[in-house]
Amino acid sequence: MAAHPSHAIGPLPSWNDGPVKTAILEFVARVSDKDSLGFIPPAERIAVFDNDGTLWTEQPIYFQLAFAFDRVAAMAKDHPEWENTEPYRSLLHRDPNGLAAAGEKGIAQIVAQSHAGMTTEEFDQIVRNWLSTARHPNLRRPYTELIFQPMLELLKFLRAKSFKTFIVSGGGVEFIRVFAEQVYGIPPEQVVGSSGVVKFEADADGHVRLIKQPQVEFIDDGAGKPVGINRFIGRRPIFAFGNSDGDLQMLQYTADSKNPYFIGLLHHTDRAREFEYDIHTHAGKLEKALVEAQARKWTVVDMRRDWGAVYPPPPDTRNTHH
Amino acid sequence: MAAHPSHAIGPLPSWNDGPVKTAILEFVARVSDKDSLGFIPPAERIAVFDNDGTLWTEQPIYFQLAFAFDRVAAMAKDHPEWENTEPYRSLLHRDPNGLAAAGEKGIAQIVAQSHAGMTTEEFDQIVRNWLSTARHPNLRRPYTELIFQPMLELLKFLRAKSFKTFIVSGGGVEFIRVFAEQVYGIPPEQVVGSSGVVKFEADADGHVRLIKQPQVEFIDDGAGKPVGINRFIGRRPIFAFGNSDGDLQMLQYTADSKNPYFIGLLHHTDRAREFEYDIHTHAGKLEKALVEAQARKWTVVDMRRDWGAVYPPPPDTRNTHH
Repeated sequence: MAAHPSHAIGPLPSWNDGPVKTAILEFVARVSDKDSLGFIPPAERIAVFDNDGTLWTEQPIYFQLAFAFDRVAAMAKDHPEWENTEPYRSLLHRDPNGLAAAGEKGIAQIVAQSHAGMTTEEFDQIVRNWLSTARHPNLRRPYTELIFQPMLELLKFLRAKSFKTFIVSGGGVEFIRVFAEQVYGIPPEQVVGSSGVVKFEADADGHVRLIKQPQVEFIDDGAGKPVGINRFIGRRPIFAFGNSDGDLQMLQYTADSKNPYFIGLLHHTDRAREFEYDIHTHAGKLEKALVEAQARKWTVVDMRRDWGAVYPPPPDTRNTHH
Repeated sequence: MAAHPSHAIGPLPSWNDGPVKTAILEFVARVSDKDSLGFIPPAERIAVFDNDGTLWTEQPIYFQLAFAFDRVAAMAKDHPEWENTEPYRSLLHRDPNGLAAAGEKGIAQIVAQSHAGMTTEEFDQIVRNWLSTARHPNLRRPYTELIFQPMLELLKFLRAKSFKTFIVSGGGVEFIRVFAEQVYGIPPEQVVGSSGVVKFEADADGHVRLIKQPQVEFIDDGAGKPVGINRFIGRRPIFAFGNSDGDLQMLQYTADSKNPYFIGLLHHTDRAREFEYDIHTHAGKLEKALVEAQARKWTVVDMRRDWGAVYPPPPDTRNTHH
């Protein structure tokens, strides 16, 4: 075995030394060391992560919403009536005031329109194509490169310690599953998210289709997160990480346990490398969860202070040492 | 390594030699052998099993229904009004005609009543207590011993070949999860089933409760099975096993694939050791799925012919060789 002393910086190289990194390492050691009083059997080491703003960036808008906007634009040629129909007109003419007037209801309509009327496999392919070509408007990188390097290291470290890592997201489960396995190492069956109604159809030749419908089925956000965890995982997590008020109930659920638990809350404090926001934002508003985290001494990650790197290096600069 | 020649009978000792056992062994070899044309990567080796009538017995009534009946009887002392209210009166007085008159709606009411109004943890404990004391009316064994030995061997064999084994049941997901890990080796997060609405509540002290409501949320049966697989697993299975018309759409979904797949259908033909039924039964009616399985040359298991054993030996007779 060759020695690599320069790489001997532990399992979380992109986390700066300090109380946050120490809290993570100590918790994982405590539950995974057989001789520890806090030992937890591997099957019960469930770790849940929010996605938007926790595993990847969520500004200036949720990436799935960027997908929905692009999708509506691509569909517009088959819908000439959209020129005179809100919210489509405002979206196609990039009219922010018109979109704002359409409100949550208009946005929901755009998401439903762009996510329905096709089979689950067709949707997968549409998302796949979009992810391979779309770029973030400010950061000019593919969305799947705007994932947080420290969180990738944390996911990998937890799995090495026999944790089972899950995404529990307010975003659409079928959207996230397209990239989660390749990007995060999280397989489809470990992604919990919001979903639309899906309809089964079979024809006489034995061909089967699952057709995505425009109706919402389940919103995996806020109180929906612990409900979704109960429904999909069926076991209370011992490790939970979020970044917004939509994650608060998931964190509360994880923290109401006699067993050891770890609660992480990411605070976006880094205007230079990513974004700086908490109360005054639409995507990922953080207010109540931060107050509660501070009061209960949960582990609050200050991105600027605690992360040595934010994103992975671009692919063409990787592996240059080998 | 010690040799055990007397045990050298392959991975499925309770399956009799014949075309069914051969079909299973050949399929598993085909998808798991790296040099095979039909090789499928481990992450895609999803195997789904119905529960009632496929992994354990389902006669004379679904075991979960037996639980619901016992539960209503246990709750009756707090509900004197049930003496004059159907379907409770008929149930408490063991009046089969009255129960039949109450129909599906009455049964649904009994299930809802017996499964709601408590936290998810309380429900888990109630089911656990029931399973530890209740006995099957004819077979006089605990319900969790009325599991099929050949299927236990099959689950274990598939997992040894890097399959991920799931239950996809019309039964209640929270009921099955109580015993699935210990009995089948299938953890809670790999159980898909029907579910009721669950409500999140948090108090000011940080205590959190998930309260089971009497409303049905999702019926994981018939066309609901492929929908449930899409929602919970997000990947099309390559191996599916069922025993009734309620499994047909799951089998069709698995069979509509360009990849190799295996479809198993258990036919209960064994009046002496278990039960003999197909068309004329309430629990596990098998008619259309059998016709389709025969037409499409799926693997139909004839319990009497193909299984050398049905149930595991009673616990007190196990391990006598060690």
